[in-house]
Amino acid sequence: MSLKLYELVGTDAARPFSPYCWRTRMALAHKGLAAETIPWCFTDKAAIAPHGSEKVPVLLHGDSAVVDSWVIANYLEDSYPDRPSLFGGEGGRATGRMLNWWGDITVVGGMFPLIVADIPAHLAPVDAAYFRKSREARFGKPLEEVAATRDQAVVGFRKTLDPLRLTLKSQPFLGGDAPNYADYIVFGPFQWARAVSPFRLLEEDDPIYAWREKLLDAFDGTARNSPGYAV
Amino acid sequence: MSLKLYELVGTDAARPFSPYCWRTRMALAHKGLAAETIPWCFTDKAAIAPHGSEKVPVLLHGDSAVVDSWVIANYLEDSYPDRPSLFGGEGGRATGRMLNWWGDITVVGGMFPLIVADIPAHLAPVDAAYFRKSREARFGKPLEEVAATRDQAVVGFRKTLDPLRLTLKSQPFLGGDAPNYADYIVFGPFQWARAVSPFRLLEEDDPIYAWREKLLDAFDGTARNSPGYAV
Repeated sequence: MSLKLYELVGTDAARPFSPYCWRTRMALAHKGLAAETIPWCFTDKAAIAPHGSEKVPVLLHGDSAVVDSWVIANYLEDSYPDRPSLFGGEGGRATGRMLNWWGDITVVGGMFPLIVADIPAHLAPVDAAYFRKSREARFGKPLEEVAATRDQAVVGFRKTLDPLRLTLKSQPFLGGDAPNYADYIVFGPFQWARAVSPFRLLEEDDPIYAWREKLLDAFDGTARNSPGYAV
Repeated sequence: MSLKLYELVGTDAARPFSPYCWRTRMALAHKGLAAETIPWCFTDKAAIAPHGSEKVPVLLHGDSAVVDSWVIANYLEDSYPDRPSLFGGEGGRATGRMLNWWGDITVVGGMFPLIVADIPAHLAPVDAAYFRKSREARFGKPLEEVAATRDQAVVGFRKTLDPLRLTLKSQPFLGGDAPNYADYIVFGPFQWARAVSPFRLLEEDDPIYAWREKLLDAFDGTARNSPGYAV
């Protein structure tokens, strides 16, 4: 059965930038699965409404639609049990649920104010207007004001990554000796930032920087070959 | 071979209160292993120096000494592979390393200023003096000043537990349907607080409160039957 993935893009349909879609894209690569991309923009709500979602990723597998990156990861793990495991067993799947929340709150949430002001430039006017209005309502101020303090804010953001940083001192990946979905949970947001923002999130001597480099190169450079800034 | 565990206590040798020793105590119970307690106080450095450690837990297994709660958990998993798994497979062990750092930084570290001022009252004079001096140096102020803002600080602490809280909305334990070492990583600090401080860390309608109740009752109430405050 064919696999198709709705992925968030802006004016460049070949530059996917959602942190959640990137989790799915890496999970597909991990399973050795090819999936056709269906480029999707913020205001294309009608395109995915029939699949029961307002957001991407949405994975189409034959006649089935699977919604939400965490649900998709579990779906892929269960549908392709003979391919490399995304979780390394049921214990990894269970704790992966918490890592996913940590990734959403600490990594996506911490990164967002640092890169948000760079996003509208990548969007068509109708999407840029939607994005700016909805996100400025969330922050309670103009995106440029959110970003104005990012040189200071990034220091605090880096500090919140200490649990990841310390883990990488004793093992190469969150998944252990090789990357698995735990890594993609955190890498997805970094790939999001790389696609839309020239802002430097990590210092070069940070173990997380080296880890990100390895994930950029994984699966024949799936992530590195996608358009982005060299940060 | 016999198992013996050095556990941190104060004036009451039957009231162990280290977050790290509680992780080990729960791990032993999970494996169905009995271990003799060797009560240990902060200034008993000489007692454990021969085992190559300045801190507890130290687990003695026959002639072997195993140091550090994370190392001990791995040692128990590898030494007793036929007993209930602490990690639920290699994926759970790998991501457990990160949860352990998250637990150390966010849970132990976040809880510490909230309960630290209550600890000296549980210690003999020599240990209380050591504890106060070393911890006041770390905080850069008297313990009472650290605790003075705890009614406000606890609100921020609770918020940092969101990844755990949200996980517990879709599964009963971090380990999945049943608790495993991922749960004990976070529960250990709560049991530490319960042993030494009447300060209320959680609100009763918090899903984490209900989760803690279940862990207090686990293994025939191993944790609940240990002396502590009803919080």
